[in-house]
Amino acid sequence: MDAPERGSLPGGPVRPTARAISAHRPLGGRGPELSGGLLRDWQARSRDVSLPMALRHLRTAGNMENLRLAASGDGGVYRGPVFMDTDLYKTLEAIGWEQARGTTASLAEFTEEAASLLEKAQQPDGYLNSYVQVTGQQRYTQLERSHELYCAGHLLQAAVAHARTGGPARLVDTARRFADHLASTFLGTREGLDGHPIIETALVELYRETGDGQYLQLARQFVEERGHGLIGDSGFGRRYLQDSVPVRESASVAGHAVRALYLESGVVDVAVESGDAALLAGSAARWDDMVATKTSLTGGIGSRHSGEAFGDAYELPPDRAYNETCAAIASFHWSWRLLLATGDSKYADLMERVLYNGFGGAISADGTRFFYVNPLQRRDGHFENDDPGRRREWFSCACCPPNIMRLLASLQHYLATTAGDVLYLHQLAGASVDTELGGGAFGVEMTGDYPWSGAVELRVRRAPAPDCGLAVRVPHWSGGVSAALNGEPLAARADEHGYLLVRRCWQPGDVLAITFDVRPRLTYPSRRVDALRGTAAVERGPLVYCFEQADQPAGVSVEDVTLRPGGLRERPGTLPGVGRTVVIESDAAQLPPAAAGGLPYSPRPGGDGRGRPMSAVAVPYFQWDNRDGRGMRVWMPLSRPDGPDTTAGREPGGADSPADIE
Amino acid sequence: MDAPERGSLPGGPVRPTARAISAHRPLGGRGPELSGGLLRDWQARSRDVSLPMALRHLRTAGNMENLRLAASGDGGVYRGPVFMDTDLYKTLEAIGWEQARGTTASLAEFTEEAASLLEKAQQPDGYLNSYVQVTGQQRYTQLERSHELYCAGHLLQAAVAHARTGGPARLVDTARRFADHLASTFLGTREGLDGHPIIETALVELYRETGDGQYLQLARQFVEERGHGLIGDSGFGRRYLQDSVPVRESASVAGHAVRALYLESGVVDVAVESGDAALLAGSAARWDDMVATKTSLTGGIGSRHSGEAFGDAYELPPDRAYNETCAAIASFHWSWRLLLATGDSKYADLMERVLYNGFGGAISADGTRFFYVNPLQRRDGHFENDDPGRRREWFSCACCPPNIMRLLASLQHYLATTAGDVLYLHQLAGASVDTELGGGAFGVEMTGDYPWSGAVELRVRRAPAPDCGLAVRVPHWSGGVSAALNGEPLAARADEHGYLLVRRCWQPGDVLAITFDVRPRLTYPSRRVDALRGTAAVERGPLVYCFEQADQPAGVSVEDVTLRPGGLRERPGTLPGVGRTVVIESDAAQLPPAAAGGLPYSPRPGGDGRGRPMSAVAVPYFQWDNRDGRGMRVWMPLSRPDGPDTTAGREPGGADSPADIE
Repeated sequence: MDAPERGSLPGGPVRPTARAISAHRPLGGRGPELSGGLLRDWQARSRDVSLPMALRHLRTAGNMENLRLAASGDGGVYRGPVFMDTDLYKTLEAIGWEQARGTTASLAEFTEEAASLLEKAQQPDGYLNSYVQVTGQQRYTQLERSHELYCAGHLLQAAVAHARTGGPARLVDTARRFADHLASTFLGTREGLDGHPIIETALVELYRETGDGQYLQLARQFVEERGHGLIGDSGFGRRYLQDSVPVRESASVAGHAVRALYLESGVVDVAVESGDAALLAGSAARWDDMVATKTSLTGGIGSRHSGEAFGDAYELPPDRAYNETCAAIASFHWSWRLLLATGDSKYADLMERVLYNGFGGAISADGTRFFYVNPLQRRDGHFENDDPGRRREWFSCACCPPNIMRLLASLQHYLATTAGDVLYLHQLAGASVDTELGGGAFGVEMTGDYPWSGAVELRVRRAPAPDCGLAVRVPHWSGGVSAALNGEPLAARADEHGYLLVRRCWQPGDVLAITFDVRPRLTYPSRRVDALRGTAAVERGPLVYCFEQADQPAGVSVEDVTLRPGGLRERPGTLPGVGRTVVIESDAAQLPPAAAGGLPYSPRPGGDGRGRPMSAVAVPYFQWDNRDGRGMRVWMPLSRPDGPDTTAGREPGGADSPADIE
Repeated sequence: MDAPERGSLPGGPVRPTARAISAHRPLGGRGPELSGGLLRDWQARSRDVSLPMALRHLRTAGNMENLRLAASGDGGVYRGPVFMDTDLYKTLEAIGWEQARGTTASLAEFTEEAASLLEKAQQPDGYLNSYVQVTGQQRYTQLERSHELYCAGHLLQAAVAHARTGGPARLVDTARRFADHLASTFLGTREGLDGHPIIETALVELYRETGDGQYLQLARQFVEERGHGLIGDSGFGRRYLQDSVPVRESASVAGHAVRALYLESGVVDVAVESGDAALLAGSAARWDDMVATKTSLTGGIGSRHSGEAFGDAYELPPDRAYNETCAAIASFHWSWRLLLATGDSKYADLMERVLYNGFGGAISADGTRFFYVNPLQRRDGHFENDDPGRRREWFSCACCPPNIMRLLASLQHYLATTAGDVLYLHQLAGASVDTELGGGAFGVEMTGDYPWSGAVELRVRRAPAPDCGLAVRVPHWSGGVSAALNGEPLAARADEHGYLLVRRCWQPGDVLAITFDVRPRLTYPSRRVDALRGTAAVERGPLVYCFEQADQPAGVSVEDVTLRPGGLRERPGTLPGVGRTVVIESDAAQLPPAAAGGLPYSPRPGGDGRGRPMSAVAVPYFQWDNRDGRGMRVWMPLSRPDGPDTTAGREPGGADSPADIE
């Protein structure tokens, strides 16, 4: 592999200009280097296993062939959904971020092939869309469903990645020609916008990369046009398309979750680059509302299968949660933009929750299969139509796998920022972090065994001469924090932004050791979440846990297990199929199988008693479904409180007997 | 109105032949006459308000015009879904059942117009389908989605209704020509069947009416062919179409709920007419499984919006329950067939539950609007795409309204049966019931104020000379039953089939008075129903109740109310918009509004305390959504048990404070 020089590249995703509203700045260059631990493993697995698989699928599923047909201009039979081009674009973006760390011959070859194909397929005026060109549909006449600007947006994003990582110039040129065509077609001259956002943030990123203000203006136009019913109806109505309320008047995220959050990334990008504090505040308020009322414990969002959409407030079913993988990624992207704009750790908190759970769980342990839908419960025998709900290599609508790859390839960029003369570490991982700070170079080596261990060591490699700050996010879940500087205990309190900030004249060799409390804990739902009443979940550090059938004692159905709050014991180890993990055993009780026959409603409550004491076993949610595909629960029913077992003396034929409950 | 003579007509829906497996027999003729009470009111409202409205919509929505285009043979622009013909057929069936009691000029006129139009549109070989004929699509090439046999089935059912109620002969002739065409096309000669069942039961009914065995054979062929993947894929897979497992091997209902249960009606019809006890037992076993694992408290079925389908076992969310009105009707039809075959009161129990709740709630108090989806909870501000989830006059897919009308028009037929020399009363209502029994005429007048009152009086008008039995179903919900014969107390115990059976030499003037216990009661869910944990519902007699925002004390959100088991007080009265009702007040508590901000998950349970004592007000579920369209709940969270309020002493910043829960 041939890696470019560290720092020789402009940076990663999201590069606010100097004029932008931006409390924090990304590090630039290649960003931190993941040097060990889970995140490094995920990134490597994606590059070594997932990405080569994606290239194979792009060749066999029709994506490349569609573009070849478009390039030939002779028509032919288009294959797949209208947005097949985006699978390629997201893969190209992943390759772009990968190549900042070094590329391989096959990745470089593929990039050249794709860039050449795109160049050939692009029409003289800059337009490029294999579906429209192969089928002969008229451009921009069905924007509610054609995804033409959505496809354009992903091309722009891929090009921006390559522009920032030394990729082929002609890919960037192709994207600019398309963007210029869009500007001349839409900017101030034509009403209309895409049913599926992403062009907004893509245009702002291209503006940041090129300095060409018309891209920012067009992004702004698309944001302002939304909510006025200009899009038309894709069959799911206007809320689905975020087109029922103007962005500035919208109080909460609604409709198709991925669309809603891709739009929000664009809204924040437009707001910060335009200095539009009101637009920014609106997006931040919707983020708060989403977190408070529409987010699963795993950080997953979009509770409805129907329309892949946000549900009503507090509609958060664990079994039916849709929680599309792409929506988790969209949430991650949106939070990062708000984190840069404001510097509030709550955004990094959510990013961590999403990363290790709602996102991390989408990938099989071996990197070969992916979830599209990420529920928090699966009953034995589950079916969604004919699908048993297990991970798959690829999908007929394959948006998620390459989206996962582009995030993992750029993951290190989301670890750290600077604000003035302070280096902020938002995510904990084995990583080398280097940046310019306070007029000098600041280099910090982060080590530890996060998330398995809560102990993190920050060793300063080099530091600027004057005082400067090193800040580490105190995760919201950490009950206690202890810290020591060069072995001396330190008062460890988070500042008002949620960070443990140490300011001093740092010396090479200084060691800041911090220990977060990752002991397993129970988490309870708000009473407003109807679907979770009477349950609790197990968490440990940033990891949400789940109880899979495979781990329970022989003969015990996970559906008959209730948790007894109190005893949680952890056991590090390696599980076949799963790999390294920390298992948690919880005090629990095994209930007798529920009464069969008649309606599942009865004139008397319960009737199952407190059950037989047992230990129930949980594994991290991100490691689920790597064994037998049977039942899984994140939220476990709670055992009855201790006290007389009110069911012990009930007569035969009483309570739950079939005779009584119809 | 011109009413035919009572008893001069062959009967109502489902007329097993003398050779059929059939523990019970329907009464025949016009069936019982609804003489007063809620069911009579519903039937009259449907005839006077709903049916005329349906005729208007059939003229304006395109149904009649589609057939006119088909009759003209000149093509044209077809309007609506492919099964538009069925809206007309179901309406014609409703008119058919209505005319047994008397018709109106406008109904008779419409029937003549429609019968003539169908005759003209029918092709020389008997084929008839406006969609296929107008669009020129090839017959039977897309049975997975074309609904051609589904449309045929509803035509046959309409014709059978008219054959049994003295409707126009040419409607029956049109249907027979189509059925003969189907037999010659499919019977033993062609594999393939419709993605949407109903042709099966329709063919058996036509066999019953005509004695032509080829219809029964064809129905049997369609039942046996199912589950072998012959249908193709409509986009939702094979389970959706009940095509993944042969009927004889299927253990539970699955896929699209209406399709699944229309098929089951056909399965039972084929089984009883073929003397196929194994086929019958399989359907009965699936019924048991459906009741135990896939039925809402209202009797509603099909929990998933996605695919309008059954979910997994115990997947019964109150808020997201789809519970399509047509599925409730299909359940009613299936249960009736199993009741006739077996004589087990559990089928009548479910029919009652469906009738007064899942079905009854689909119709607005004034009969002008209908639910397609019937959830058990609606949060304030609910949206399903752009739809706030209120009743509508009609739908672009208008399957439900005319389905409601055909059931209500034939409702009296489901009240009573005979078995040997016993007259069985399955549903309680103001009704005159007359039948031949034990070689004589048995006439009983049923009066009372059911379901508002549990007191029912059965006055014998005439009786045969020998001993005979009068049996009344003891509803499964009735805690106690008392009975008196001519004023003398009677031991009131249900027999093994669930009926209170009195056998004697009945005399005109004999009065059997029975009182069921309709006092309001709390009902609790099985622990297996995850979505209902920690809640209870209020029922009264056969009525499920619900808590609507409109009825709660000023300033109390229904989302902040918890029930305190114990005090339930009933209050008869009339509510504006709702009409006559019995309101129930429950001891309850008002919780403080849930903490805002941060994820709705916390390291400590609850935190809301026991709340402020109050009375919460419930109305029958069938009367919901006749006021302001705001929140509604059937299942209410339970208050904490009495005892020290563990939250009283919690520190500020503890428990639910936003700071702690992210």
